[in-house]
Amino acid sequence: MGKVISLNEKISGDKKGINHDDTPSLDLLSNLVGEDLQSVNRVILERMDSPVGLITQLAGHIIASGGKRLRPMLTLASAKMCGYQGKRHIELAACVEFIHTATLLHDDVVDDSELRRGAATANSLWGNKPSVLVGDFLFSKAFQLSVSDGSLRVLDILASTSAVLAEGEVMQLVTSNDTETSEDSYLEVITSKTASLFSAACKLGSVVAERPTPEEEALASFGLNLGIAYQLVDDALDYSSNSKNLGKAVGDDFRDGKITLPVLLAFRRGTENERKFWKRTMEDGNQTEDDFAQALNYMNYHDTINDSFKRAKHFGEVSKDALELFRYSSEKKALQEVVDFCIGRTN
Amino acid sequence: MGKVISLNEKISGDKKGINHDDTPSLDLLSNLVGEDLQSVNRVILERMDSPVGLITQLAGHIIASGGKRLRPMLTLASAKMCGYQGKRHIELAACVEFIHTATLLHDDVVDDSELRRGAATANSLWGNKPSVLVGDFLFSKAFQLSVSDGSLRVLDILASTSAVLAEGEVMQLVTSNDTETSEDSYLEVITSKTASLFSAACKLGSVVAERPTPEEEALASFGLNLGIAYQLVDDALDYSSNSKNLGKAVGDDFRDGKITLPVLLAFRRGTENERKFWKRTMEDGNQTEDDFAQALNYMNYHDTINDSFKRAKHFGEVSKDALELFRYSSEKKALQEVVDFCIGRTN
Repeated sequence: MGKVISLNEKISGDKKGINHDDTPSLDLLSNLVGEDLQSVNRVILERMDSPVGLITQLAGHIIASGGKRLRPMLTLASAKMCGYQGKRHIELAACVEFIHTATLLHDDVVDDSELRRGAATANSLWGNKPSVLVGDFLFSKAFQLSVSDGSLRVLDILASTSAVLAEGEVMQLVTSNDTETSEDSYLEVITSKTASLFSAACKLGSVVAERPTPEEEALASFGLNLGIAYQLVDDALDYSSNSKNLGKAVGDDFRDGKITLPVLLAFRRGTENERKFWKRTMEDGNQTEDDFAQALNYMNYHDTINDSFKRAKHFGEVSKDALELFRYSSEKKALQEVVDFCIGRTN
Repeated sequence: MGKVISLNEKISGDKKGINHDDTPSLDLLSNLVGEDLQSVNRVILERMDSPVGLITQLAGHIIASGGKRLRPMLTLASAKMCGYQGKRHIELAACVEFIHTATLLHDDVVDDSELRRGAATANSLWGNKPSVLVGDFLFSKAFQLSVSDGSLRVLDILASTSAVLAEGEVMQLVTSNDTETSEDSYLEVITSKTASLFSAACKLGSVVAERPTPEEEALASFGLNLGIAYQLVDDALDYSSNSKNLGKAVGDDFRDGKITLPVLLAFRRGTENERKFWKRTMEDGNQTEDDFAQALNYMNYHDTINDSFKRAKHFGEVSKDALELFRYSSEKKALQEVVDFCIGRTN
């Protein structure tokens, strides 16, 4: 778990004031679902095995390269919070992680990324071709796993979520390089490409526990808003972290011309001259060495990075309120801490 | 339907002797399932619709660009042959076509193909990125469709088939450029990447009709062997057709260094000098303008293109025998004609 600074400190601009005593972390969550998560990891290893060596090798690389396993932990904790006593949540959590990993492989191909979580991406090591195909393999494995669970309800959730995920990725591609993207369109993209899987991961917990509809909806809403907050922070960190902590190169989004909230707001709030700068660098892809520093200047002047963190905080609050339907439990507390962790993280 | 010459003529080397009177075609099949196929096309159009314009556009391009709709027709005819009276086979046939289309999109990215069925590929028109993502979208849509069918048996078949397909594609990537690939490995690749979906398409017909296991197995075997024959012919045509009929550039496999049966046999049967030629051109990718003609010379000398058609004929025979379990019906006759059409086709 990385050190994080509280959101208030971040908004006030005091980035050095790390609070060691009250640092939001995933510790409580990890403690509560640690044993189940080990079972999830076992299922993942078993299921990604293939007679084709390259599949096991490449899938192993991306799955083993760490990651917080946040999404499967959400499924595990949600199920427990709903009083679920069985074992179905284990395979479903693995299923969620497989879908996530498949999209990561395809994302890295689409974005030509070279670093992920501080390690070389699969596409940079093996090339785009196996990454595309092993992504397909992992998608299929996710569906095999969910079929073996045997619930059409669960299958429906996962199949619909996968379709929405793919739609979100294409939407992002379409809005990429368009500085006039509205905040609403941006939100639609991150809701589809990120938040929908967070939402499904949480909802599955209540589905296996056979809880009434309001609880399902509460968990779906918790996950959705958490996912939006998570992606907002991710996009803001691309302009405010350092490569070592972020696990990828800062400024990647800028160099790719990917329009995220910090840019979108800077464009809207900017002068005509500033808008020309954004159009040249992000739309025309015509960038010089000093442009990234200049971009940061404009963003800082209009406070768009901090405002992105503020927007994240808003969705974090909505997320926490969604959980209030449930009575107190350690799992509920852990899930609330996930929100604080996600909006407070620095990498 | 393209004109085809009979297999005997092809083997005897008389490629001009087109037999207009007894040309195997898909006509009987098309007549029998034509109405159902129109329903399948309607389902496809409805389901590929998306608020994201690029998805509808790109998916529409590849789906509308023709293709014989062979796989969905196999599902429709198999179901009818099994006496099925309902409507489930319509959506399942659409599902099979979605899976097929998704793999085509990803294949063309992996192979850097520019032509498919005589038209520009989606990746050459829109780039690789949307092709990868729209492929994912179509995969997800296939699963949504199969979930709405509601049978876990069907879902299991489709999820397993998708995993095998992806494994086959990766296997092909691994054996690509390896002139020492054995005929068995080659067969394993084409069984996974092509025949498995043919097999599933046929098997689904008996599953919806709730036929006993031997009939399911017979249809699965019919499809599997038909699919192997189909791919063998496809690979042989890459050295013996002309671009206009083939709908793609002849010699693509050679230029890509893709090791298929005609090459694999020429390497095995060749002299040391010939093997050096194959290693240089296919393994090292070091090709001059005259090399394709030279490759054809070696293949003709060792008769490896004709022998590939002969191998196809063998699997076609096995395929037909698998059907013999069923009593006579127009559908059975149509399915048998599919075999003749597939091994006799010239494009």
